[in-house]
Amino acid sequence: MTGLVLTTYDWVPQPPRGYVRDLRVRWALEEAGLPYRVESTPFRGRGPMHFAHQPFGQVPWLSDGEISIFESGAILLYLGERSGALLPPDPRSRNQAKEWLFAALNSVEMASLPWSLFVFSGDTGDSPAWKRHDAFLKARLAHMEPVLAGREWLAGSFSVADILMADVLRLVDRFDGLKDHSACRAYVERATARPAFVKAYTDQMAHFARAD
Amino acid sequence: MTGLVLTTYDWVPQPPRGYVRDLRVRWALEEAGLPYRVESTPFRGRGPMHFAHQPFGQVPWLSDGEISIFESGAILLYLGERSGALLPPDPRSRNQAKEWLFAALNSVEMASLPWSLFVFSGDTGDSPAWKRHDAFLKARLAHMEPVLAGREWLAGSFSVADILMADVLRLVDRFDGLKDHSACRAYVERATARPAFVKAYTDQMAHFARAD
Repeated sequence: MTGLVLTTYDWVPQPPRGYVRDLRVRWALEEAGLPYRVESTPFRGRGPMHFAHQPFGQVPWLSDGEISIFESGAILLYLGERSGALLPPDPRSRNQAKEWLFAALNSVEMASLPWSLFVFSGDTGDSPAWKRHDAFLKARLAHMEPVLAGREWLAGSFSVADILMADVLRLVDRFDGLKDHSACRAYVERATARPAFVKAYTDQMAHFARAD
Repeated sequence: MTGLVLTTYDWVPQPPRGYVRDLRVRWALEEAGLPYRVESTPFRGRGPMHFAHQPFGQVPWLSDGEISIFESGAILLYLGERSGALLPPDPRSRNQAKEWLFAALNSVEMASLPWSLFVFSGDTGDSPAWKRHDAFLKARLAHMEPVLAGREWLAGSFSVADILMADVLRLVDRFDGLKDHSACRAYVERATARPAFVKAYTDQMAHFARAD
């Protein structure tokens, strides 16, 4: 088996479509112009082969010959080492892209993912837990706002850090969580206007629609 | 300014002591035998210099000459590229260490950090939010259990992935969240028995105690 193979579910219910994390990898591959194939693994009935590639039974994973990698952050870092379109060449910007890649996942998504589950569950009343999570996300967005107001992309030029950060903030925006953070929203808009995002999104939607 | 300089708070309240994230970096530096200095930034009154190094007003950050890096994951990856004690040399194990480094942060800590905040807040009653977070963590631990039962370290030999995973699971264990997951608990025990962890932990405790 040669070449890059991206594996995602064969089907998912409607709500996560357009947000399944193979999108991050598709986006990076399209930005880099790297050829790849997409394969499917059953959404229902995840077997030992699935867990051998992804120990949490999730998607995506990427195969490159003998190597198989899970975790969208790890996959994007791997692809970043292969393409100048995904990580800047000078050491300082390169480090900046890598730290922002982690920040997107661990400082922003750490707050936004639990927040989204509250909103998606309609669990946004007066509970201390909701207030704590809402305040957590708002604090993180308040820190992102001046950063994104001051620059077009996180690390000098567009990089894998922007793919992750924009994808994380896009889910917040879906639940109207960016309405008081116009720089965050404008950033999501300019990132998702890129042809590589549009192609990745369209391809994911078509992939799951084919299985209906 | 030459050499590696790790910056953490000058002081923190009692509860987070021993768990502030400079510990992950101290641990890695001790494992690698790399010389470093520790500097302090005010816990109260975080100024523009702090935000210039760490945009979320948190700690730690690491300076290496002209380069300054935030996010514990990014710092450990940076140090991993410098020392064979932190990332295995062969490409396959190296990729494995990197994917587990992301998994520790984004698949396990993503579940465990919100869970810990529920427990720390005493917010563990009958609410749907608590049940959702508890189930989320349990599911992740259930996937980690066979992985950690089957190997000593995540990627062949001890690596930065183990520093992150063990530190993440250590906080769960503090709140007695590993009692049904003996392989996870045994893993935390063997990781924290390493002299480099003991040194890092002792040094962090002494650092904050000096400011009392």
